[in-house]
Amino acid sequence: MSSNLAFLNLFKTRKKIPMLSKPAQTSEALHPLIQNRWSPRAFSSKPVGDTQLRRIFESARWAPSSSNEQPWRFIIGFLGDQTYIKIFSILVEFNQLWAGTAPVLMLGIAKKTSSKNPERQNKSAVYDLGQALAYLTFQAMADDLFVHQMGGFDAAKAAELFQLPADHEVITVSAIGYIGDPDILSPNFKKMELDQRYRQPIDEMVFTDTFGQPAPFLTSAG
Amino acid sequence: MSSNLAFLNLFKTRKKIPMLSKPAQTSEALHPLIQNRWSPRAFSSKPVGDTQLRRIFESARWAPSSSNEQPWRFIIGFLGDQTYIKIFSILVEFNQLWAGTAPVLMLGIAKKTSSKNPERQNKSAVYDLGQALAYLTFQAMADDLFVHQMGGFDAAKAAELFQLPADHEVITVSAIGYIGDPDILSPNFKKMELDQRYRQPIDEMVFTDTFGQPAPFLTSAG
Repeated sequence: MSSNLAFLNLFKTRKKIPMLSKPAQTSEALHPLIQNRWSPRAFSSKPVGDTQLRRIFESARWAPSSSNEQPWRFIIGFLGDQTYIKIFSILVEFNQLWAGTAPVLMLGIAKKTSSKNPERQNKSAVYDLGQALAYLTFQAMADDLFVHQMGGFDAAKAAELFQLPADHEVITVSAIGYIGDPDILSPNFKKMELDQRYRQPIDEMVFTDTFGQPAPFLTSAG
Repeated sequence: MSSNLAFLNLFKTRKKIPMLSKPAQTSEALHPLIQNRWSPRAFSSKPVGDTQLRRIFESARWAPSSSNEQPWRFIIGFLGDQTYIKIFSILVEFNQLWAGTAPVLMLGIAKKTSSKNPERQNKSAVYDLGQALAYLTFQAMADDLFVHQMGGFDAAKAAELFQLPADHEVITVSAIGYIGDPDILSPNFKKMELDQRYRQPIDEMVFTDTFGQPAPFLTSAG
């Protein structure tokens, strides 16, 4: 570990605190799993246990979905196996430059037709997959695991490599694992790893009455 | 409270247990906020505090999004106010039959163009809104609040009533509040309220190698 990281929350003694901590800057304290979540690029290659894996997929499974269609599907690869190599191969170079140390790579797939009525499109499929990934991420965090989702990949190549049915689409690719040492990253990625996280002001996203009118409770003392 | 609910986990003494408990049936114990989440229809009209509201929207705010576009927007109404009445008016009758006791109704809106490059569509907007709603839900659960999302509403009427910009779309409407007494529901809804929750088997959603091939860790003892 290089000395320029000494200002960070490294080597915390409590088990649940990740090595590199980047808590959300918020007006109110959030649940620690939300406050401490972020998307690292430096992953340790330490394997993820089967129990942890079952837990994170059970969590995705119990997410809510429109008409309980459960339109989420996952394909998972482990560092060193053929599935991992195939998933890695569909990533854009920008993501290949860091994702290859993660012990798990995963495709998040939406089933875009209704299972109850196959003639019908499920308009909520992509939205519901987003929820399922978030549930998976909370449970991962509860087991000290982090998830970094990527949008930069070749969905057509993924559909071909994994023989997806025509009504299924890869929407997201995730790296999953324990936090690693930022020093394993190239200088540009290391800088991004240590940067502050940023969000737009809350009064630009929560409105009342009409669109654009900030809700009063955002600034009240109540 | 009627006597036919006596078999349920009512009147738990621990503060964090909801009145009507419907835990997910899972092979592994999940984080309690995930295990115990469900979508009630019987809401108490007890108001939600400003601090709790700030927390749940801060949680949505710190969800991840593609290129950090944060394409989520929310419009919130409180039981008795004009915004609530407008949101209620866009619901299909099926939802109007139960949603009107919730202290909070909320629109979940996706901004479908990129904020960094307004000429470009943000293909992840709806997916990312799904994640933000899950973060909001998780924090709500931490404050004993429940969220019931609805897909049955008139999005065009919502866009008109709330003067949405053309690149914004209402994707979901949520009722938010504390669990209420199932006896306030009509008989059909009460039956649904007390029904077991259901999910498809996990080996039909988590694959390895090719699509449809269940991942071995799902049944391993590891």
